[in-house]
Amino acid sequence: MKLYSYFRSSASFRVRIALALKGLAYDYLAVHLLKDGGQQLAAEFKSLNSAGLVPVLDEDGAILTQSLAIIEYLDETRPQVPLLPSDAAGRARVRAIALAIACEIHPLNNLRVLNYLSKTLGISDEQKNAWYCHWVETGLATVESMLSDNVLTGTYCHGESPGLADICLIPQIFNAQRFKAKLDHVPTVMRIHEACMRLPAFADSAPLNQPDAE
Amino acid sequence: MKLYSYFRSSASFRVRIALALKGLAYDYLAVHLLKDGGQQLAAEFKSLNSAGLVPVLDEDGAILTQSLAIIEYLDETRPQVPLLPSDAAGRARVRAIALAIACEIHPLNNLRVLNYLSKTLGISDEQKNAWYCHWVETGLATVESMLSDNVLTGTYCHGESPGLADICLIPQIFNAQRFKAKLDHVPTVMRIHEACMRLPAFADSAPLNQPDAE
Repeated sequence: MKLYSYFRSSASFRVRIALALKGLAYDYLAVHLLKDGGQQLAAEFKSLNSAGLVPVLDEDGAILTQSLAIIEYLDETRPQVPLLPSDAAGRARVRAIALAIACEIHPLNNLRVLNYLSKTLGISDEQKNAWYCHWVETGLATVESMLSDNVLTGTYCHGESPGLADICLIPQIFNAQRFKAKLDHVPTVMRIHEACMRLPAFADSAPLNQPDAE
Repeated sequence: MKLYSYFRSSASFRVRIALALKGLAYDYLAVHLLKDGGQQLAAEFKSLNSAGLVPVLDEDGAILTQSLAIIEYLDETRPQVPLLPSDAAGRARVRAIALAIACEIHPLNNLRVLNYLSKTLGISDEQKNAWYCHWVETGLATVESMLSDNVLTGTYCHGESPGLADICLIPQIFNAQRFKAKLDHVPTVMRIHEACMRLPAFADSAPLNQPDAE
């Protein structure tokens, strides 16, 4: 397998964790989102993924896009070390937590959106940082309430094994910390973050441990 | 089952289509996103879903949130009329199309984001409409390319049965049309939209056919 990734992309980080949890080897192909006007927008990359987004997983020529779709595919085709619970209600809970991050927080704060705010709407850096922190802090408050008042939360988001929800949560915390978002209102989130970061699959997948890290 | 829904919410619309395709009856509980300062933000509703978002599905007291998680749950627990293909690669493709809408288009254009742009950043209505159309038009162009150059696209997004990708696509087209976004660059998308709208499950689930329609 080949993974097209950018070290700082949190969607790429999610897939790296999933691959690591399952012990799957892959070739790392770096796509630099800032160099050359964005390598993800070059014709060569867009012929792989017309969306111009990382990550992309290439399995023997089969091109997979969208991090959550890739992770569900990996979980279906390599069921060892499952990333979703065995019961439908549990899967619904884990997917809802994952989507509360992947649909409600992350899309508002990715590079192309921040660029539109700066370049097209002309907002200041201060306003851009406030925008960033607003969506991270309110979004994580929601995730905190999904976790803190539910007996199914364990060492990880759902019980005693890390899975899809943790895979989405940890990259979001890295982003939050990079933008100096407030995190003291989400103690359960941070406890789970610390538990995950003690696992090599999470720590080794972190941005600064990638071949293209700067 | 009870569905907490707002007629114009496209995430609610998605779940209504899924329920209709599977022939599942439900009680419709209207949550008005604009009245009373937003009924979704009232304590009563937030005790159900702390995110303050519709839809919510209540199945015998089990509370399910996030439209895609709800739909996957319905598909797992009521496998008749499947909404995902039977092969893992097909499921990955359908989920990627669904997520290209649910993660890349919809989150940028929902009510709370538009409110932030107007109220906190003070942008004009003209700028807000341009923002809206920018993300819909570029996002749908990506979806068009995922559909138009793939032999697996049929009458619907994936073959000859409507499924999760169509369920996400059609509400997004309703939104695009409401905001007068350009759609002439996405002919495959619009062909599929027309095919879906000929099906009662889609037509009956449309905003103006809901009990709380205005």
